[in-house]
Amino acid sequence: MNTYLDCIPCFFSQALFAARQAGCNEQQQKQVLDEISRLVPQLSMNASPPENAVPIYRIINRISGSTDPFAEIKEQSNKAAQSVYPDLVRRVESASDPLLTAVEIAISGNIIDYGANRDIDLKEEIENILDQEDKAVHRESRELFDIESLRAGLAAARELVYIGDNAGEIVFDKILVSAITKFYPEIRILYAVRGKPIINDVTLADARTTGMDKLCEVVSSGSPAPGAVPDFVSPEFNELLNKADIIISKGQGNYEALSGSGLPILFLLRVKCDIIARHIPAELGDFCLIK
Amino acid sequence: MNTYLDCIPCFFSQALFAARQAGCNEQQQKQVLDEISRLVPQLSMNASPPENAVPIYRIINRISGSTDPFAEIKEQSNKAAQSVYPDLVRRVESASDPLLTAVEIAISGNIIDYGANRDIDLKEEIENILDQEDKAVHRESRELFDIESLRAGLAAARELVYIGDNAGEIVFDKILVSAITKFYPEIRILYAVRGKPIINDVTLADARTTGMDKLCEVVSSGSPAPGAVPDFVSPEFNELLNKADIIISKGQGNYEALSGSGLPILFLLRVKCDIIARHIPAELGDFCLIK
Repeated sequence: MNTYLDCIPCFFSQALFAARQAGCNEQQQKQVLDEISRLVPQLSMNASPPENAVPIYRIINRISGSTDPFAEIKEQSNKAAQSVYPDLVRRVESASDPLLTAVEIAISGNIIDYGANRDIDLKEEIENILDQEDKAVHRESRELFDIESLRAGLAAARELVYIGDNAGEIVFDKILVSAITKFYPEIRILYAVRGKPIINDVTLADARTTGMDKLCEVVSSGSPAPGAVPDFVSPEFNELLNKADIIISKGQGNYEALSGSGLPILFLLRVKCDIIARHIPAELGDFCLIK
Repeated sequence: MNTYLDCIPCFFSQALFAARQAGCNEQQQKQVLDEISRLVPQLSMNASPPENAVPIYRIINRISGSTDPFAEIKEQSNKAAQSVYPDLVRRVESASDPLLTAVEIAISGNIIDYGANRDIDLKEEIENILDQEDKAVHRESRELFDIESLRAGLAAARELVYIGDNAGEIVFDKILVSAITKFYPEIRILYAVRGKPIINDVTLADARTTGMDKLCEVVSSGSPAPGAVPDFVSPEFNELLNKADIIISKGQGNYEALSGSGLPILFLLRVKCDIIARHIPAELGDFCLIK
């Protein structure tokens, strides 16, 4: 997906939030905004938003002197999500359609995203996830919630690449990875994380903290962007993507990076900005499972 | 009020909205954003947001070739507001405290603001204004809704300058101007409009279209900014401000321009952004009548 003009104001507000998160003082925050301003005329609108995010977050890291401004947020997200993990497991165990419930839980976890959605109250969000009747899940819409394609894809697959998105969210992904392992034991599952810290995106450290590495193989995509941008991933990961029978891509960043790639991807995401809503098209807040 | 760092992302989204409103094509919209980017490092954070808005909207006008991109929106706003005017009059006539009701109606009209609030559905908003029980009005809070200072100020005043804010909203202002005329017939009322079109702010044309000029004297502040910025108003208007016994200032833009000026101002506004909410301090959506 290309960068839209509407992404530009959003880059500035994301950057300001990240600069504060990185401990920048007022003057450094202004410097971040000024340097991004100088960058804007050079951004390619043919690149995807996560591609353009790379030089933006590089500016923040340089000015703040931090390589991982969201470390604390990621730790808190993992902890908060882990505290509800047993409840999530019980929900799947008692569900009439455990795979469907696991998919819904995995998509629910996609609300934990400090890129698109900076005002989240983690505890409240997780309670919402657990309480809600998932009104926005398009179970009735094959187009926006294509669970049958997922079932068919899994039934035929031997190798699955599951591209993670955010810290915290990874705990919700464990629910789906477990369900797939249970119902499709033949499938080799590779859970992919970012190549280095960017925003609150999931890295190898989060996969270890949350025990994802106990459930399946964990690999680095090599991407330094908040999305598995094909031009930015490692050659090894590119190879994995190309030979995978099915790819599960979580979240907006991966959707922005990979939609239109021609790979056998199912995108699982919550719609958190107007631009993605328009691009899919869907409504803000929707739970989507789309090709 | 100084410009906050959070105003910078907002300048970009306002500009993109205005560029589209002005009929700019995609390429021109990008040019607008690029030129504003070049401007950002030169913006003074010690200037108020409406001061900084002037060069921004100048860029949009130059690139679009339009001197009044919001002309149509202003016309629609005036019409929509005028269609409910008789109902507003009846509400004041049947109110137990007509001045209070007129003040609340005038503040309600401040939702018609395409600077801070671009997603408004005018008809829906006006219906909300008429339906609501004004839960957010701080009638009980002397600090945020200081009606007694307004009454005392009016009782002692001979000359009032009422600084208007937006088209459409001016019709709601007529309700308050009428009430003041009725209950304080000794007061000379001067209703001030912007010096030239900027966003959907009120100009002489709107005062004539809506008949405000039949109720009281209408003057131009001379300000080309979306706020009566002291450095930008005409010397004649500055003199009017300095000799006024009481000044009613409508909306966020005038609040940003004039808060801290030391003039005998009562600010009537709805809180439409986090920065203003923090500055007052109040909550988003609040109806304020403050010194």
